[in-house]
Amino acid sequence: MTKGHDVMPDEDVKQAITAAVDRNFDAQVAFTQKMVRCPSLRGQEHTVQDLMAQAMARRGLSVDRWKVDVNDIKDMPGFAPVVDASYDNAWNVVGTWEPEKIAGRSLIFNGHIDVVPCSDPDRWTTPPFEPRLDGKWMYGRGAGDMKAGLAGTLFAFDALRDAGYGPAAPVHFQSVVEEECTGNGTLACLQRGYRADCAFVPEPLGPQLMRAEIGLIWFRVHVDGDPQHASAGFNQVGANAIEKALHIWPGIKALEAEWNARKADHPVYRNHPHPIRVNLGEISGGEWTSNVPAAAVLSVRVAVLPGDDLADIRREIEDRVQRAAQSDPYLAAHPPRVEYHGHMAEGYVLENAAEAEAVLAEGHRSVYGADLTEEVTSAATDARFFGLYQNTPGLVYGPICEQPHGIDERVDLDSVRAVTKTMALFLAEWCGVERL
Amino acid sequence: MTKGHDVMPDEDVKQAITAAVDRNFDAQVAFTQKMVRCPSLRGQEHTVQDLMAQAMARRGLSVDRWKVDVNDIKDMPGFAPVVDASYDNAWNVVGTWEPEKIAGRSLIFNGHIDVVPCSDPDRWTTPPFEPRLDGKWMYGRGAGDMKAGLAGTLFAFDALRDAGYGPAAPVHFQSVVEEECTGNGTLACLQRGYRADCAFVPEPLGPQLMRAEIGLIWFRVHVDGDPQHASAGFNQVGANAIEKALHIWPGIKALEAEWNARKADHPVYRNHPHPIRVNLGEISGGEWTSNVPAAAVLSVRVAVLPGDDLADIRREIEDRVQRAAQSDPYLAAHPPRVEYHGHMAEGYVLENAAEAEAVLAEGHRSVYGADLTEEVTSAATDARFFGLYQNTPGLVYGPICEQPHGIDERVDLDSVRAVTKTMALFLAEWCGVERL
Repeated sequence: MTKGHDVMPDEDVKQAITAAVDRNFDAQVAFTQKMVRCPSLRGQEHTVQDLMAQAMARRGLSVDRWKVDVNDIKDMPGFAPVVDASYDNAWNVVGTWEPEKIAGRSLIFNGHIDVVPCSDPDRWTTPPFEPRLDGKWMYGRGAGDMKAGLAGTLFAFDALRDAGYGPAAPVHFQSVVEEECTGNGTLACLQRGYRADCAFVPEPLGPQLMRAEIGLIWFRVHVDGDPQHASAGFNQVGANAIEKALHIWPGIKALEAEWNARKADHPVYRNHPHPIRVNLGEISGGEWTSNVPAAAVLSVRVAVLPGDDLADIRREIEDRVQRAAQSDPYLAAHPPRVEYHGHMAEGYVLENAAEAEAVLAEGHRSVYGADLTEEVTSAATDARFFGLYQNTPGLVYGPICEQPHGIDERVDLDSVRAVTKTMALFLAEWCGVERL
Repeated sequence: MTKGHDVMPDEDVKQAITAAVDRNFDAQVAFTQKMVRCPSLRGQEHTVQDLMAQAMARRGLSVDRWKVDVNDIKDMPGFAPVVDASYDNAWNVVGTWEPEKIAGRSLIFNGHIDVVPCSDPDRWTTPPFEPRLDGKWMYGRGAGDMKAGLAGTLFAFDALRDAGYGPAAPVHFQSVVEEECTGNGTLACLQRGYRADCAFVPEPLGPQLMRAEIGLIWFRVHVDGDPQHASAGFNQVGANAIEKALHIWPGIKALEAEWNARKADHPVYRNHPHPIRVNLGEISGGEWTSNVPAAAVLSVRVAVLPGDDLADIRREIEDRVQRAAQSDPYLAAHPPRVEYHGHMAEGYVLENAAEAEAVLAEGHRSVYGADLTEEVTSAATDARFFGLYQNTPGLVYGPICEQPHGIDERVDLDSVRAVTKTMALFLAEWCGVERL
């Protein structure tokens, strides 16, 4: 084989690639730890994006870094409302590989760099942003969801190169913000013009093919009370905003059972045990123990099935809130307000992706010696943007994570190593390779 | 009458005193507005205390100003726990009048300078710390509760002096912090050695004698959840700390009805319609809409009847919380914690105060042309400290306030004027007067 001559990788090349993953794995773990040490909570993503941009530049990728601008994306399908958040530090980073000559199929590797808050940091065994290795586990907020997978995309690329090859088609490595709250980071990549024949999102849902994912809506219910002295305003009764909000909650909660019941008719989710979760994620109300509270807010995450129309779902939510309000004289006269403050995501089913699935299955079999299985998930990922709005298969396949969004989040490094191998083989097979 | 000759004030003197209240009333209103403009929320009391110290010094009172120190008072009866609060700005101010010769009975005027938060400032007609006059009303946070009454004590003193007299006994004008959360400001006055034959607290409960007030306990219930991804941890269920806290709340709420039922046997409260209020004053929980919440906190104010033992009541609260926890497998294994974070106040009944009551009744009759009526209240005041721990009658009698602790708090300036007259007459009659 001569330089620049494009090939499909043979068994020797594949072995060289997976051997390179092994050889580089200590460095991969160390780099993942570096990523975890940057607390890339919403609004603080910029420092770790510096690291990502640097890592891409060192690999010879051309680096595109830009601040997500709501004005650029607000009219696009898939946009989610931005409330009480600044995009001042919301930088996306995309590194691009261009082959000598385009011979294969192009690819986007996409992973989110943002992490969710740490629940209760004091309850972690060790601090959440000090990545700790213990046997096969790496602990840390974001270690699993999803810095290990995102790091893996760069080390998959390294493995090809260490074996003496480069992908024979353009590859975009996207490190995006905002996946955990809106998806607007990946949407901004679409707006900027990134396209490929396939997208691969190594979310930590395990080394299996995600056939489908649910959609998400975030909303808040704002309730105003009639604040008074806690002794009942010396002589008036008032209305406790917190208790009024609690009057609203059971009706919202009931949506979970009602919507799960609908899965019976769903082509993909009918066998999932419990696709819909309604999560009361945040509550706040009052400001002084002896004041009858003036205001209370419920923040809720609901899931929706693929195919559900988001406008219909919003109407159901609002009807439910107003129906509860109607059953209380004070709330009937002072109706609660529903505000959408984040995710506004449709569900997604991977379809018409036989070619990509076959390549993934072959890579998986090479690494695991077993057939690729598939699953449907009660979570959502940014893969939907590729499938729903770009007619591009969005594959989700990644390492094993325990306690995502919980305490002592951890990622299984054995699975990270194996998934990195699968990604490297996918990259080689999907794009083809050219000798460097 | 010659200078320094002590007298009981005759009708002419009384008329001169009440005429002086009228003459000074514009200045009194302006001074009260100045007080309201200082937002003396907990932790920010120092600026208005500067104003108070200056106002006392200008009147020739000797001014004692000191920072409340928890170590000085923490072992005294009546002390309430200080949690999440700094006393860095918690300055008490006491101005003392000493007569030429002590001939009458000494007096403490006591009022609190701290105010509660503003509920929702945006819902006020005008900003809460910009005191607005509209007809007989002055609007503003703290205007009624209780800056108008506290200002009135100084202008009652002015009225005597403008009529050409001074009190014939020591008088202490106490401007205290911490009434709204602990009572530790007045407790610190006791610790510092202030004593008198009577205490007078012009809380805005109206121009009537408060025969009794309830006690208060503040507590928090801390609930730890098992945080997870809102999709149910990808594969685990978790425990939502907010929903677990909501499981605890109904049992606490039920105490209100149970404790109110006990009033039937109470010598003082049996005719009060609803002495006990259980107020869920604050709630917080969660930090991210798509995380199953790690923690939630309820902050509750309960009232207790005079005579109730606080240790017994605490045990009832804790039993109630634990009983609710036992009915839920997760909470049974992860019991909530009860924390006392403020008021720990016994109820108080004014007794053995015939002399002081008679003097108050006489002054009230002079001003209102009607008999003094009495009331029992579902609120608490600092008067308890004098009665319970100093064997000193603690009179509560003050102006009319609407919306205390609420939106558009306002005080009736006609009542402020009248109550100032009653206080001036009480001062003259209780202490006697000496010609200046």
